[in-house]
Amino acid sequence: MISIALPKGALLKDSIAICQHVGLDFSAFLDKQNRQLQIIDPTGTARALLVRAQDVPVYVEYGQVQLGIVGYDVLREKSPDVANLADLHFGYCRMSVAVRSSSPYRQPLDLPPHARVASKAVNCAREYFDSLDLPVEIIPLYGSVELGPITGMSEAIVDLVSTGRTLRENGLIEIAVLFESTARLIAHPLSYRLSPDNLHAIATQLRLASEPAPPAGVVGS
Amino acid sequence: MISIALPKGALLKDSIAICQHVGLDFSAFLDKQNRQLQIIDPTGTARALLVRAQDVPVYVEYGQVQLGIVGYDVLREKSPDVANLADLHFGYCRMSVAVRSSSPYRQPLDLPPHARVASKAVNCAREYFDSLDLPVEIIPLYGSVELGPITGMSEAIVDLVSTGRTLRENGLIEIAVLFESTARLIAHPLSYRLSPDNLHAIATQLRLASEPAPPAGVVGS
Repeated sequence: MISIALPKGALLKDSIAICQHVGLDFSAFLDKQNRQLQIIDPTGTARALLVRAQDVPVYVEYGQVQLGIVGYDVLREKSPDVANLADLHFGYCRMSVAVRSSSPYRQPLDLPPHARVASKAVNCAREYFDSLDLPVEIIPLYGSVELGPITGMSEAIVDLVSTGRTLRENGLIEIAVLFESTARLIAHPLSYRLSPDNLHAIATQLRLASEPAPPAGVVGS
Repeated sequence: MISIALPKGALLKDSIAICQHVGLDFSAFLDKQNRQLQIIDPTGTARALLVRAQDVPVYVEYGQVQLGIVGYDVLREKSPDVANLADLHFGYCRMSVAVRSSSPYRQPLDLPPHARVASKAVNCAREYFDSLDLPVEIIPLYGSVELGPITGMSEAIVDLVSTGRTLRENGLIEIAVLFESTARLIAHPLSYRLSPDNLHAIATQLRLASEPAPPAGVVGS
C-alpha cells in the first residue's frame, strides 16, 4: 500500500485536493471532528499520515511513508535526505527579510553589523546573511516573529510572507526576498527507486495534476 | 513599567489568574476575538507580551521583558540564561518515556541499543539516555510525537504527560519519568538585581499568591 505524509496547516486543503484528483480521498482529515492522524483511502490504495509540516520530511527520511507533501521552505531549512520529485504549484509564499517601516533600513546591507534578526528559519537566515558577509545575531523564535522588531528585540526578521497582511498590520515592510516557496512532492529515495505499489505512477499523476492548465486555445485542439 | 511574558497554551489561564491575584489584569488575552500580542493592564502598572511558551525565555534573556512565566520543561530543554525565581505550583506535568503497551519494554534499559526515540525535547531526551549509558537515536519531531511508536518509526518517545489521556488513547504506556514540571517565574538577571519599578515586590507577591494554602486550622488562628 502506498503511504503519504500530508502537512497540517496552510497546505492541507490543496494537498487533499490534489490527492482527490488522482483518486485518493483523504478528505476525512478536513472534518473538524476528526481526531485520527492516520487514515486509509476508501479504495484501500493508500494510507495517509497527518503531521506537522516540519515533520513531513522526517517521516519520509526514515522510510515511514514513501511520499510526502511539504513546503520548499521546510526543505531549505532542514535539508533532509529525501528525493524532491516535483513542484506542485500551490501554497506560494516567499522567505523574506522585513524591518519596521519607520526604520531607516531599506535593504539588508543597511542593517548595522551585529544587528539582531529574529526568525523561525534560523538556518535559512544564517546562510543568507553569511552570503552577504554581514555578521548578524540570529534570535531563534517559535512563533509571532513580528514581535521581534515591534518590541525592539531585533532590527529585522526573516519570515515567510504570503499575502503580506501580517507585515502590514504590524507596521513592517519587506526589504529582500531570500527565495520563493511552493508545495513539493518528496519521496524516500530508496522506496522510489525500487517503486513498490506503482509509486512512480502515482507520483507522475500527482505531478501532472498540479501542472498549470495550458492556455485555453490549446485544450481540445 | 514592569513587563512580563506570558505563555500561549496550557499555562495561559492560570498565568493570567495569578497576575490578577496581584492586581494585574491581562484577561483581555483570553478573549477569543483578541489579536493583540502586547497589552498594558488597566492600572498602567505593567505590560504583558503573549508569546509561544518556548519563546518566553528568549524575551526574558534578551531583556525585552523583565519577568516571564514558563514551564520548567522549557527551561530544562533550552537552558536559557535567566533567573529562576519561583515555582508557581500550577501546570503540573511530567516528562516521561513511553512505549507501545504491546511492546516487551517495561523500563528504559529494556530498549535495544540504538533504539529510536522520537521527541520534541531532544536535549532532555539525549541527556537522559546518556545518563543511562544507553546509546539511542533521537528523532526530532515538532508535533504528535505519539505517532512515532504507532507508525513503527520509533521504539519509544520522550514527551510531556499530564493526564495520560493521549498516551492511553494511542495504546502507549509510561515506563519512566525524567522529571516533573510546573510553571516557573523567571526574570532577566540584571533587571532583577537592579529592580526598577519595584520588580522584587511584584515577584514576591506572585510567589506568595502561588503558594499552596496552609492547612485550614491555621488560617485565622
